[in-house]
Amino acid sequence: MPEELLGNLLVAQSGGPTAVINASLAGVITEALNHECIEEIYGGLNGIAGILQEELIDLAEESQQTIRGLRYTPAAALGTSRYKLKRQQDFERVVAVFKAHDIRYFCYIGGNDSMDTAARISQLSRELDWELRVIGIPKTVDNDLPATDHTPGYGSIIKYVATTVKELACDNESMGQRDLVSIIEVMGRNSGWVAAGSTLAKHRDRPNDPPHLIYLPEVPFSPQKFLADVQRVLKSERYCMVVVGEGLLDENGNYVSTSSGQTDAFGHSQLGGAGAYLAGLVEQHLGLKGRVSRLGHPQRAAAHCSSLTDNAEAFLAGQAAVRTAIGGTTDKMITLLRGDGESYTCETGLTDLEGVANAVKQVPATWINEDQTSLSFQFQKYALPLIQGEVQVPYENGVPQFVRLRKQRVQKHLEAHEWE
Amino acid sequence: MPEELLGNLLVAQSGGPTAVINASLAGVITEALNHECIEEIYGGLNGIAGILQEELIDLAEESQQTIRGLRYTPAAALGTSRYKLKRQQDFERVVAVFKAHDIRYFCYIGGNDSMDTAARISQLSRELDWELRVIGIPKTVDNDLPATDHTPGYGSIIKYVATTVKELACDNESMGQRDLVSIIEVMGRNSGWVAAGSTLAKHRDRPNDPPHLIYLPEVPFSPQKFLADVQRVLKSERYCMVVVGEGLLDENGNYVSTSSGQTDAFGHSQLGGAGAYLAGLVEQHLGLKGRVSRLGHPQRAAAHCSSLTDNAEAFLAGQAAVRTAIGGTTDKMITLLRGDGESYTCETGLTDLEGVANAVKQVPATWINEDQTSLSFQFQKYALPLIQGEVQVPYENGVPQFVRLRKQRVQKHLEAHEWE
Repeated sequence: MPEELLGNLLVAQSGGPTAVINASLAGVITEALNHECIEEIYGGLNGIAGILQEELIDLAEESQQTIRGLRYTPAAALGTSRYKLKRQQDFERVVAVFKAHDIRYFCYIGGNDSMDTAARISQLSRELDWELRVIGIPKTVDNDLPATDHTPGYGSIIKYVATTVKELACDNESMGQRDLVSIIEVMGRNSGWVAAGSTLAKHRDRPNDPPHLIYLPEVPFSPQKFLADVQRVLKSERYCMVVVGEGLLDENGNYVSTSSGQTDAFGHSQLGGAGAYLAGLVEQHLGLKGRVSRLGHPQRAAAHCSSLTDNAEAFLAGQAAVRTAIGGTTDKMITLLRGDGESYTCETGLTDLEGVANAVKQVPATWINEDQTSLSFQFQKYALPLIQGEVQVPYENGVPQFVRLRKQRVQKHLEAHEWE
Repeated sequence: MPEELLGNLLVAQSGGPTAVINASLAGVITEALNHECIEEIYGGLNGIAGILQEELIDLAEESQQTIRGLRYTPAAALGTSRYKLKRQQDFERVVAVFKAHDIRYFCYIGGNDSMDTAARISQLSRELDWELRVIGIPKTVDNDLPATDHTPGYGSIIKYVATTVKELACDNESMGQRDLVSIIEVMGRNSGWVAAGSTLAKHRDRPNDPPHLIYLPEVPFSPQKFLADVQRVLKSERYCMVVVGEGLLDENGNYVSTSSGQTDAFGHSQLGGAGAYLAGLVEQHLGLKGRVSRLGHPQRAAAHCSSLTDNAEAFLAGQAAVRTAIGGTTDKMITLLRGDGESYTCETGLTDLEGVANAVKQVPATWINEDQTSLSFQFQKYALPLIQGEVQVPYENGVPQFVRLRKQRVQKHLEAHEWE
């Protein structure tokens, strides 16, 4: 048995929202209540930006009903942030906040940038002799974190995307119009996991079902090949349905989309318009109508169409983080491990925070078929279990009933932090 | 008792798809099977365009399972068309097709343009001494048909829109960012019914819930007022959620959006970009970030989020059309009539096809609040019952399971029609 560490737990959320990030939060809170060594359960508002400003709330003040409701409420109930800690004094400030509030357990729900932040906070607290156990909980619709079979959030977004593709396919098919090119742009800045997941709209026994063509950031984009692909599909189909990941790259490694040239706080290019770009090609070179559906932000928040499997795993990851920290471990991120058996099983594992930080996992080349526009049987086998089951979101007056945290503030103990 | 008219029934679908247009088709088929005077039940492919070309299918050949599956399969299973009959010889051709296939009952599921076509076919068949009973079945997500309390298709699109607004509100709220202006563009070329329906995302007791501002084509748009509206909201809210109908008009009655200048077969302008236009205003004049979510075609095909009430009424309208025609009536469109009681009830009625043709019903001015960006209690009372209940779409392998018609062709009896 490890030595019992008495103190408070802080949980925070970071990066882009997903449909199930709050299920992980619910998992953390639910599990933390089981352990007497955890005295207070605090939430940090707006990710690391709020923690810097000592903006903490008392999660034990929230009702049981609210905590239960978190499981199907999309986006980040604690608030999130894309703010990136850079200055040494900011890291020191975080540790000062932790000391002031006796934070001994820190669960950080986020993507690879957040795991980097978590690792550095942990390192500094060791240097400053503050015993702290830091566990990361993976979260991203992009599914691009290494070391985990998949990430919570991914199953739900591809369930929504595949559902929307099936519905749009009915719409396209019903239009008398021939030679319609229907282009669906989905999320995925650095990887094509979301675009690839749209293949689940196809019936297993009907490989020619829509979507007919899938373009991933993993495959350098050739306009000539694209136009030939579309023409080939339209020889046998009345319409051509294309799914494209927003982060599509040309043969020189530049985004094909008309980039605004702007970058976010992490230096990532702000994207827009891979779908519009493809539609432009189709209209200019083939004289055909290109209809673009950009699924945009609704796709990452679509709790009403989320995957029960994904939701359960997100909750499980939250629980596992607390149990791991209580058990004496630190500097790890929870992973999801797939069982070897014929039928899908999933349990949690651990990986070093450092190994996840700033790394990106792409769709393996061997899972992309030779035509470069469809996914292999191995991909189908990988992704299909992740979208199984439908979360039964409760409805009130015909719309989903989501919860909001009461956000009872914890009294601040420190002077205000000098903001960047 | 009217004289029994022996012969075949033809049903066809027209105009833009909805989530429940196939429920009306299922209603027609189910009811037609009950009446012995109907000998064959034919479907016309691709609306009037297919009928011109004598492209009929035998609906009695479809399995029971398929007919049941139609009830939750979005878009037009028979195919649809926006083709508009103009030439006298085209109308004559339609009557010739009806004669060749002994069509005595014609059920046409569509919007106001389609009711015009149906009325003219009926008129010509009388002139040509072919006894025919023509009944229209209303269908449009736009809810802009006169003489009916509401149209099948409307309840489902606003249920989806309100659900998406609630989910995006969670997403916006969770972003640490202040002063985000989140703009959701929804369908509605000539009327603001869909945009107005987004108000159902608000909790009854919380008028300040998102969406904070709703812009309807019924209200001439003033950029100055819009910018002032946004600034007012941002005084009390961290983000401002705006819903705008695609057909927003400026003070001179022109579309605010950057129109492509193109028109469809009915002479309607092809729209795009009311949301992008608003975002441009916000960015240029307020220096704020405008995030646009254009819900696009997925909103009209979202069977997975459709209203049980809407679905049931669409089915009922299909049944009523057949019973009305059997009863000896012609040249009518089925209407939905709301009961007077405190709790919502709905039954079908009838109105003249001629009165519906090419008319547009807009959101009444008295239902728009004085601020011109929110809807009155009367509108809420009107719209709320229409989104009640969730259609339980069956899932297979994690995605909705939709049906396709086998489309067993009826042998052609006529020479090919000279196409325009």
